[in-house]
Formats: sequence, structure tokens, C-alpha cells
Amino acid sequence: MSDRPALSATPRTRLRRMREKGRTQHSDLLAVLRGGLVAHLGVVVDGCPMVVPTVYGHDDDNVYFHGSVASRSLTARSEVCLTVTLFDGLVLARSVFEHGINYRSAMIYGVPRAVTGRDEKLHGLRILTEHVAPGQWDYARPPSRKELAATALLALSLAEASVKIRTGPPDDGDSPDAALGLWAGELPVAPRWERPVPDPALPDAAVPVPQHIAGLAGRRLDRG
Amino acid sequence: MSDRPALSATPRTRLRRMREKGRTQHSDLLAVLRGGLVAHLGVVVDGCPMVVPTVYGHDDDNVYFHGSVASRSLTARSEVCLTVTLFDGLVLARSVFEHGINYRSAMIYGVPRAVTGRDEKLHGLRILTEHVAPGQWDYARPPSRKELAATALLALSLAEASVKIRTGPPDDGDSPDAALGLWAGELPVAPRWERPVPDPALPDAAVPVPQHIAGLAGRRLDRG
Repeated sequence: MSDRPALSATPRTRLRRMREKGRTQHSDLLAVLRGGLVAHLGVVVDGCPMVVPTVYGHDDDNVYFHGSVASRSLTARSEVCLTVTLFDGLVLARSVFEHGINYRSAMIYGVPRAVTGRDEKLHGLRILTEHVAPGQWDYARPPSRKELAATALLALSLAEASVKIRTGPPDDGDSPDAALGLWAGELPVAPRWERPVPDPALPDAAVPVPQHIAGLAGRRLDRG
Repeated sequence: MSDRPALSATPRTRLRRMREKGRTQHSDLLAVLRGGLVAHLGVVVDGCPMVVPTVYGHDDDNVYFHGSVASRSLTARSEVCLTVTLFDGLVLARSVFEHGINYRSAMIYGVPRAVTGRDEKLHGLRILTEHVAPGQWDYARPPSRKELAATALLALSLAEASVKIRTGPPDDGDSPDAALGLWAGELPVAPRWERPVPDPALPDAAVPVPQHIAGLAGRRLDRG
């Protein structure tokens, strides 16, 4: 990973605000993608933006997601922006003005490619499934030929992307506001898996929760 | 709330897929907005979509957010799509094909309006701050005249919006796959506040964590 070139600085990935928060390494991008599960996909429909949530998976070169989420617009080749945001907590400052959030965010730009070959489609679906629930690809029934044909899978190159990260306490600790005597700090937030809920349609003879699912309970989702 | 008209069905809010997941009441929209904290704002820049995360607040008629997040594009009046997604968990089916997620999602379309009047700006900022951290508006130092002037606040009407919600177990409990003997169900996820982390710049004479912050630890973020 360390041999990869740094993230490109194109007109749309160059940060114009809060430059200090930008990260420039491909490994920074992968770290954000590893930590998330739902992306927000932006497309342009009739000149207007549309933003839809979608699950995704990724390898070192591409992010994969279901084409159906954007079926209204992605029939033609069109530019997208896929954004993954990990919300890490509130930044509680002494003044309302200095309040903010801690977060890790990645924005990926490009024209997604429809994955059509059987092998790459299986590769992409496996990556997507394993990203969302590691162990599930080998546990669940794999896609049939018909299901595979019915699945629209898109691949978006990671070549053009930007990463922004904010961590740490508020910035007004050495401002005149520090004398106000107010508490300031961070209120972290963590998404955690809870206990699995069996499908009521399961037979009475209990089917055990597979270990790769049961073992997630209580763990942070953003393990990246 | 029950007297409000149902959500409009415009060409872009009418659901074309998964119609059964659509909700049509204004109260459904408000419930999703109450539960979230970070929205994803989509804008069009030079014909390409850009999606940026932003904190928001809302009342019954508008969602408020900082204009600076979209400074690159929102200098002119332009259409946006603001999407709030609450990710509730994985839907683990017997087949890979039937996997999905449970979620609550709202998409709001329109041209945001710059809030310029002092009173409405204070109203919007209060709503935003109190949405993010209830109690913080009265605790922290309020915006000075200069800070208020430096804050770009946008209001987006809730008039054109769509809401989608998926809950419950997977849909393959009565398919032939049910005979596979595999476990299936939901793996819920919950974002929870953790313990507050004091700013290291606080004086040694401990400043107590205010109760409205300390009381959040362990509670779900999406209390809506």
C-alpha cells in the first residue's frame, strides 16, 4: 500500500476549505472505506442532484455497489460522487460558533462502469457481501445464474478521490473564551452491532446463529 | 402534525422502486430528521454531482444547515438534494441475493434560501445546535454580532421530500431457500454516545461536564 501514488489533486478533489483536514494517501482513503458500510451516491438527473444511500464494498482499486440504487439515472454513463462519512462525535466548544463534529470522510468521483463479466461480478458481489458481513459469502447460498444476471453491479475507480478527517478537541482552548469557565471537549459516538434477531420464519428446531454473526454483537461497526 | 398534508408526489419524489417502502406523511419525514445528525448534501458543480456531509437541524417547515459546506457551489441559487439516512442494521437472508439493510431515509429537494435576517439566523442556529446537542445553546457562549455575520446559514423547505423505510426480517422465509437450514435474521446496529472526553486545555481545577452532555453517555443517537 505504501507504494501507491498519493491521491490525485484534481480541481474537484483539491480542498478549498479546511485544508488542514485533508489526507493525501491512498491508504487514508482505504481506511475510511473500511470503516463504513453505507455510502451516499450523488448523481445528476435532469440537471438536479439526487443523493441515495447504498451499501458498498471495495478492493484497492474500486468501490462496488448495486446499480439498481441509481436506476433512474445510471442507465447512461454519467458522473457520480460517492461519499462515505464516519461520524465520530461532537466537538463541544465554549462558544456556539466553534462547535463542530469529528468525522472521517471520503469522496470518490468518476463514471462508474457496469460490471458484466461473470467472474468480475462474482468478485465484486463477494467483496460487497464480505465488507458488509464478513463470513456471510461462504455461509449463504451463492447467486444462481439467473440471480447473477438480474444483479446490476457497478464499479467506481478509486483513482480520483479526496479524504477529510477531523479529530480532537475544539479549537477555542487558547482563545479568550477559555476564561469563561465552561466545559468543553468531545462527545464521541460509536455505531455498535447489537444482538442478532432471528427471522420469525425460522423453524422451531432452532438454527444456531453462525459464529461470524454472533461474534459481532457489541463490536464497533467501524472497525477500520 | 396530523393536520399537515401528505408528502407531495412530484416526478422526483415518486418512488419507482421498492414502492412498498415509501412513507407519505409529513410526520414520517420529521421522524427521520429527528433521528439523524449528519445529512449528505448533493449539489451540481460544473455539471457533476458533489456530495458533502453536513450537520443539520430542522423545524416543521425547514431544514437548516451551514452554507459553507457547499461554498463551492451555493453562491448561486441552485437545486440541492439533502439526504438523511439512519442505518438500522443488516438483513441477513438465506441467499446472498436477498441480503439487504434496514434503514430509514429521507430525501429533500429544492433550492435552499440564504438566511440573512438576524432573528431567523438565530432561530436557525439555535435549532441546529439544539438538534445536535440539546441544552448546548443555552450553555455555550452565544454568537457575537461578528460571528453571526460570518455564519452562512441555509434553509431548505421540507415541501418536496420522499421517505423510505425498511424494517424487519429478510423476505426469503417462505421461499424454497427456507429449507436450506441456514440461519437468517437481522443484525441491528445502534449509534450510541460514549463518555465525554474533556478538552485537555481545560484548567486543572476541574470544570464539571454539564448534565445535558453527561446524561447522553450510553444513549442512542437516533432517539427520534
